[in-house]
Amino acid sequence: MSLKRSPLAPEVFPTMQPVAGCNLAAGASAVRYTGRDDLALLAFAEGTTVGGVFTRSRVPGHPVTWCRRIIKGGQARGLVVNSGNANVLNGQHGDAAVRMEVTAAARLLEVPQDQIFVASTGVIGEPLPAERIAKTLPDLYAYLAPDGWQAAAEAILTTDTFAKGSFTTTTIGGSEVKIAGIAKGSGMIQPDMATMLAFIVTDAALPAPILQSLVEAANEEAFRKITVDSDTSTSDMLLVFATGQAVHPAPMDADSGLLSAFRHALLDVARDLAQQIVRDGEGISKFIQISVEGAVSDESARIIALSVANSPLVKTAIAGEDANWGRIAAAIGKADQQIDVSRLGIGIGNWIVAQNGARVPNLDETPINEHLKGREIDIVISVGPGPGSATVWTSDLTHEYININADYRS
Amino acid sequence: MSLKRSPLAPEVFPTMQPVAGCNLAAGASAVRYTGRDDLALLAFAEGTTVGGVFTRSRVPGHPVTWCRRIIKGGQARGLVVNSGNANVLNGQHGDAAVRMEVTAAARLLEVPQDQIFVASTGVIGEPLPAERIAKTLPDLYAYLAPDGWQAAAEAILTTDTFAKGSFTTTTIGGSEVKIAGIAKGSGMIQPDMATMLAFIVTDAALPAPILQSLVEAANEEAFRKITVDSDTSTSDMLLVFATGQAVHPAPMDADSGLLSAFRHALLDVARDLAQQIVRDGEGISKFIQISVEGAVSDESARIIALSVANSPLVKTAIAGEDANWGRIAAAIGKADQQIDVSRLGIGIGNWIVAQNGARVPNLDETPINEHLKGREIDIVISVGPGPGSATVWTSDLTHEYININADYRS
Repeated sequence: MSLKRSPLAPEVFPTMQPVAGCNLAAGASAVRYTGRDDLALLAFAEGTTVGGVFTRSRVPGHPVTWCRRIIKGGQARGLVVNSGNANVLNGQHGDAAVRMEVTAAARLLEVPQDQIFVASTGVIGEPLPAERIAKTLPDLYAYLAPDGWQAAAEAILTTDTFAKGSFTTTTIGGSEVKIAGIAKGSGMIQPDMATMLAFIVTDAALPAPILQSLVEAANEEAFRKITVDSDTSTSDMLLVFATGQAVHPAPMDADSGLLSAFRHALLDVARDLAQQIVRDGEGISKFIQISVEGAVSDESARIIALSVANSPLVKTAIAGEDANWGRIAAAIGKADQQIDVSRLGIGIGNWIVAQNGARVPNLDETPINEHLKGREIDIVISVGPGPGSATVWTSDLTHEYININADYRS
Repeated sequence: MSLKRSPLAPEVFPTMQPVAGCNLAAGASAVRYTGRDDLALLAFAEGTTVGGVFTRSRVPGHPVTWCRRIIKGGQARGLVVNSGNANVLNGQHGDAAVRMEVTAAARLLEVPQDQIFVASTGVIGEPLPAERIAKTLPDLYAYLAPDGWQAAAEAILTTDTFAKGSFTTTTIGGSEVKIAGIAKGSGMIQPDMATMLAFIVTDAALPAPILQSLVEAANEEAFRKITVDSDTSTSDMLLVFATGQAVHPAPMDADSGLLSAFRHALLDVARDLAQQIVRDGEGISKFIQISVEGAVSDESARIIALSVANSPLVKTAIAGEDANWGRIAAAIGKADQQIDVSRLGIGIGNWIVAQNGARVPNLDETPINEHLKGREIDIVISVGPGPGSATVWTSDLTHEYININADYRS
C-alpha cells in the first residue's frame, strides 16, 4: 500500500555532496517489499570512528544488541541497513541472521566483522531472510559510489511518505568539513513498527570518545525532543561516522573550542532529520512546536513538554483546530513536575490564552483559531520562575492515523 | 450533542437500595447544560466519616483543593456535585465559587462548612456560576430522599453515555452492611475534560483513619488499574462515606479480620464502577483486559500493563481486530521495567502467540483474529520469573474517539 506524501514534507530531497571516505549503494533484496530498493550498504575508509545511541526499549532488536556490543571498539568500516523486517524477537535465528549479514559484508569489504554495523526496520517477530541480503550485497558492493545519498535514504524507508536527508558544511580550526545524514521515521503501518533510524557521516577526524559525546549531546537536543505517538521502537538507532579524511587541528576533547562550529552543525543536521521524522508522522495534518519555560530544570521542562505533546486530547484538539487550552493545562498537570500554578501561562501562536493560572479575561479565540487552521502550530507554556526550558516537536492525531494503524487490513 | 449509548454499557442501571444515613436529590441548575439535571446533593447523618483519594494532577481543580483540606477532619455531612463546569484554573473566583456552594449547603443542612464536600466536572477555565447552584440547592434540599441513586448518577454525567451505579451488601461481624456507589467517567468532548468522579456510601461504622486506608487499598486495585487514553484529569476524585447507622462490632484497624468481607465488597463496588468507566470510554468498541505476570513487583507489572494499555499502536491494532503482537512486545519494552526477554510470552484470548522471547512456530492467527472480532479482548503477558503481577482494563482507540475529540466543532 502506498500513502500520499505528507502535507508537511519538504519540497524536494536536499542536495547532498559526497563525504570523503564514504561510499554508498542501494538495491533490492526482496526481504519483504517488492519492486523497490530495501537494502543500503555504506562503506567507510580505514580509521573511521563511530559514536551512537540506541533505543531504551527493554525488547531491543537483534541488530541493536549487535551494534551495542561492537560500538565499544569505536571503529567502523561498514553499515548494512534493510527495510521490511526489523529482526526483533527472533531468538537464536535473529542473532544468526545478523551474523550472516556481518559475515557477508565483512568478506566483501575485507574488514573485521566487528566493524560492520547492522540496522533493520520493519515487521517484528518474523525471521529475517538474511540469505537474501547476503546474496544481494555483492551487487551493492559493485556499485559503491560517493553520491548515493538519496538512493540509500529511499532504500531504508518503510511506510515513510518521503525520503529524509540533510547536509551541511562547517569548519574545524579553519578547515572545511562536511556532515551528511539520512533518516527514516515513524511509519507504523501494521504490521510494521515505529522505528527511527538516523545515520550521519562526516569527514572530520574525531577520536571515538569525543565523537560519542558529541553524538549524545546532539541526540539530547534533537531526537529526544520529538514524539509522534509516544511509542518507542525496539530498533531506534542513531549512528554517526567520522571518516577522518578532512585535515584539521585535532581537538583535545568534545568541549574544545575547535569544535564549537562543528557541534552546532551536527546539531543542525540531527534536528533537521528529527523534525523531518515528525513531519512524516502518520496521518499528520499539523506540525506542533511546544516550548516550556520556567521549569525547575531543562529535563523537567522536557517532561512537561512531552506530556503535552503526547496527550491524545491535545493532539485531537489541534487536529480539530480547536483552541482547547484546558486540555493543555491538564496535560501539564499530569506530568507530575514541580510547577507554580499561580504563574501558569499558556500561549497559542502569538496569543496568550492563560496567565497567572487563569484564563485571560474576555479571551477572543478568533485569532487563535485562525492560527490553528495553519500547518505549523506554536504552543508556549510558562510554569513558574525556574531556569528550566525545553522545546519539543510533535504531530497531531487524526483520522488518517487510525486509518493507517487500524483499518489497513479492512 | 448526544452520543449513542456505548456498545459495552450494561443492560440497565442496577437496583440500588437506600443506605441508612444517606439522603439524595438531583436537580437542574443550568450551570452549562439545559434540559437535564446537572446538580446532585447528598446529605449524611451526624457522625458520618469520610475517606478519599484525589487526582495527582499538579493543576487540581478548586473543589479538589477544598476537599483535600477538609477531609483531614474525617467528618462529612454533605456532598454537592455539579456537571458542566469543572471549576479549574479560575483563580480567586474559583475558590469563592466553592465557598458559595459550601455556605449554601451548610446553611440548608445546618452543619459545619468544613463537612461539606464539593465536586465539579466539565469545562476548564471558565468561571463557575456558583450562584445558580446556590439558588437551586434549596429545591434539592426539599426533595432529599433515601432512594435517589439513579437520579444522582445521571445528574453528575458530562458526556458519559450511560449512568454508572453499583450496589452490594456484605457483613461486618455478622451484621449486614450496605455499600452503594455512583460514578461518572471519561467523557471528554471538547471543551470538557476527562474526569473520573466516584462516590461510595456505606452504612458501616468506621473511624476515619480505618476508612481512609480501606479507600486507598480499593483505589489501588480499581481506579489505578484503568486507563482510557492516559490523560489524567484535574478533577479526579474518589470519596467514600460511612454513615455509621449499621450496628456491628467495632474493628480495631483496617486489617482487622472483622473487615475481610467488607474489604472485598468495597473493592467489588469500586472495581465495578471503574470498569463501567472504561466501558464508557470515548469511541470504545472493545473492552480490553491486560494481565502481566512474572514482573519483579506488582507495581512493576502495573507499569508494564499500563504501557501496553496506553500504547496508541496497540489500541488501534485491537480496534482493527488485528493480532499485532509485535506492537504489544514493543509497548512492553518501552515501559522500561526489568524483564527477561528470553522468557517473554504473549497470549491473546486463549492462544499463545509468543513464547520464550519469540513468535510461536507456525503461528495460526485465525482463532486469535476470531477472538479479536469480539467485544471483550483478553491479553496475557509473561515477562519473567518474578513474583509481580497486575491486571488493568482499557478501551481501544477508534475513529469515534477522534470524532468526539476533534471533529465536534466541524
